[in-house]
Amino acid sequence: MSRQPVEAVMARVVMKFGGTSVGDVDRIKNVAKRVQAEYEAGNEVAVVVSAMSGTTNQLVNFVRETSVMHDAREYNTVVSAGEQITIGLLSMALQELGVSARSWLGWQIPIHTDAVHSAARIERIETAKLEERFKEGQVAVIAGFQGLGSDNRITTLGRGGSDTTAVALAAALKADICDIYTDVDGVYTADPRIVAKARKLDRITYEEMLEMASQGAKVLQTRSVQMGMNHGVKLQVRSTFSDAPGTLVVDEDEIVEQAVVSGITYSSDEAKISLKNVSDRPGIAAGVFGPLADAAINVDMIVQSASADGTRTDMTFTVTRDDLARALKVIDGIKNEIDYEEVNAADNVVKVSVIGVGMRSHAGVAKSMFQALAEKGINMQAISTSEIKISVLIDADFTELAVRTLHSVYGLDAA
Amino acid sequence: MSRQPVEAVMARVVMKFGGTSVGDVDRIKNVAKRVQAEYEAGNEVAVVVSAMSGTTNQLVNFVRETSVMHDAREYNTVVSAGEQITIGLLSMALQELGVSARSWLGWQIPIHTDAVHSAARIERIETAKLEERFKEGQVAVIAGFQGLGSDNRITTLGRGGSDTTAVALAAALKADICDIYTDVDGVYTADPRIVAKARKLDRITYEEMLEMASQGAKVLQTRSVQMGMNHGVKLQVRSTFSDAPGTLVVDEDEIVEQAVVSGITYSSDEAKISLKNVSDRPGIAAGVFGPLADAAINVDMIVQSASADGTRTDMTFTVTRDDLARALKVIDGIKNEIDYEEVNAADNVVKVSVIGVGMRSHAGVAKSMFQALAEKGINMQAISTSEIKISVLIDADFTELAVRTLHSVYGLDAA
Repeated sequence: MSRQPVEAVMARVVMKFGGTSVGDVDRIKNVAKRVQAEYEAGNEVAVVVSAMSGTTNQLVNFVRETSVMHDAREYNTVVSAGEQITIGLLSMALQELGVSARSWLGWQIPIHTDAVHSAARIERIETAKLEERFKEGQVAVIAGFQGLGSDNRITTLGRGGSDTTAVALAAALKADICDIYTDVDGVYTADPRIVAKARKLDRITYEEMLEMASQGAKVLQTRSVQMGMNHGVKLQVRSTFSDAPGTLVVDEDEIVEQAVVSGITYSSDEAKISLKNVSDRPGIAAGVFGPLADAAINVDMIVQSASADGTRTDMTFTVTRDDLARALKVIDGIKNEIDYEEVNAADNVVKVSVIGVGMRSHAGVAKSMFQALAEKGINMQAISTSEIKISVLIDADFTELAVRTLHSVYGLDAA
Repeated sequence: MSRQPVEAVMARVVMKFGGTSVGDVDRIKNVAKRVQAEYEAGNEVAVVVSAMSGTTNQLVNFVRETSVMHDAREYNTVVSAGEQITIGLLSMALQELGVSARSWLGWQIPIHTDAVHSAARIERIETAKLEERFKEGQVAVIAGFQGLGSDNRITTLGRGGSDTTAVALAAALKADICDIYTDVDGVYTADPRIVAKARKLDRITYEEMLEMASQGAKVLQTRSVQMGMNHGVKLQVRSTFSDAPGTLVVDEDEIVEQAVVSGITYSSDEAKISLKNVSDRPGIAAGVFGPLADAAINVDMIVQSASADGTRTDMTFTVTRDDLARALKVIDGIKNEIDYEEVNAADNVVKVSVIGVGMRSHAGVAKSMFQALAEKGINMQAISTSEIKISVLIDADFTELAVRTLHSVYGLDAA
């Protein structure tokens, strides 16, 4: 079957489907139909896919059973087989629909990366072969998450890898759009599971999306948003299972009427550490946060409060829950230098954030946030702000109440 | 852990493990121990592995569910992921034992093949990188069954692929020996499941091994034996699960005292077609076997017997059971040209073969075979011979009786 002649202007489209979208053969066939539709609309299409979700689990289990302290190169050899399987199957499913398609592994394109295995950075994507195939009317089905290291071995990109592949590819191919297909139909003003009145956003700025992603929204990985922003790639988050338009991630000047606040997020991946009665002298902060940084532990929010007599201080900060045990070990190791009276840890905390580029030109956003939370009797244990974001740390029990309250306060509720 | 200094002369060894030998993580760990032993004996070691047996089945099922008429290139992309998983896991398992190891995919070495996907032929193996790693004391863990096609895509070698990879690699690396590890501990004078007195052979010639493989013995694929013979690669068939020496496949002059008959095989993969009352005129054989050859159907044994009046003849021949239905269709299509009275087909037949290079210098082997079968009342429906082999087609019911009888007749029974 050959492609129908079309009168519309041809676009170049990168489509990305994650592990659950290609979780079994039926879903792969469904993805093939979505790709077919783009193709038959006259577009040049590159599809980036992850491994089938079950396959990844199986491969990771094999690795765990084989070796505790595994070699990153061999780990990559094993897990990258997952995307290899998906691209072959999706290419076949497309061919079955009469769509000319060919699979491409990272080393075949190649997608050159550095040799930092399991967290490789894309350095350069050669597009000549793909351009040739586009001219022949062929869809390129590309393995996400993987590249070719300078040591001629398979590398993987680490977290959010397939999103990063898609965006980097869209930049290299100068694609008109990079559609990220997920199991939700776009970016919401808040998590619809806890805010019934949450609305899907038609557009959002890169910067807001970046904050959303790093403050708990799971639809896109920060790294891929950052890359999209740097290269001016128009991103769209949309649903694998419906035809509805999704959310466009664009430059600020492409949004005509900007709301003050675009979304409310929450992140449960937080743990709080408090040092009581630390002697308040210069260099004490460096004495705490230096050793934590050396141990590669990220510290997020920090609060320091003077005690009554001014010679001692209480210090509170947050780390990710995964890092909590390690952080406490570091703190224990510096007890003699720091001279704190006691250390308390808690992981029943949540970080709630209000995000919007409109804050830049609107005063009073923080004030109304603090007021609204106070009215509901919600205590703020820590605060951090950026130009377009205010985050507060609260007791996890109040998560839903806080998010719903703020959603209303900033006028985000659907009518 | 560094390698122990050894006083023995260092050898270069290629080890090959099939799908059941690496069927799960525990078995992969067992294989790692076998490799470790060779390595710690001071040898340079290359290990060729197949896909885990379960993985192959799963991948083939995925392909079948996705596409009926699948593209060979995409099929190869999918199934070659199987070996990729095994080499990564085996390399990790070796590292876990303190053995320096690195995995190698076909395209990384590369193993260059032609672009006949799914039945590719190895054209050239680049050994420079492997030689370098051997010097560093590193074990090379190599994906069997796959190569890099001239089109820069992954090819697979088809039947017996991993054996072929191992033997080709042993030839390219000028290895001292190529050990093929299987679930049996060598080549036997007959199938031990039906002949209790079967003996393991210490040595066998390439030619005998070739006949054995093509006449039903399943330990080695003909193609790899052929390649071993052409390149003078010393092969050994041995057990994955025991340390006992296996069977060496060698040149005839390396066997001091050659038995007349080395082994008895049987093949159940046979079907018989008989054409009754064919008009006996020149060109009639070509009229039957030409169309079969055109349909890529191999005809093995052929018997033609004249009828009483000399104008008609009966024609019997064998094909593989898989080809029977297609063969009958071809025969039906040429009914008008050939003018046969009726066609009979049977698949309750078996081919029993007596194999030995000693036959070349010993007359009477065929005579004692026919006599022994006749004494047991076993009727021979067809006969074919080569310089070192005699095969007879018999009723499948007599398989065990025939094999055991011949095993005794030629003095092969264990004491």
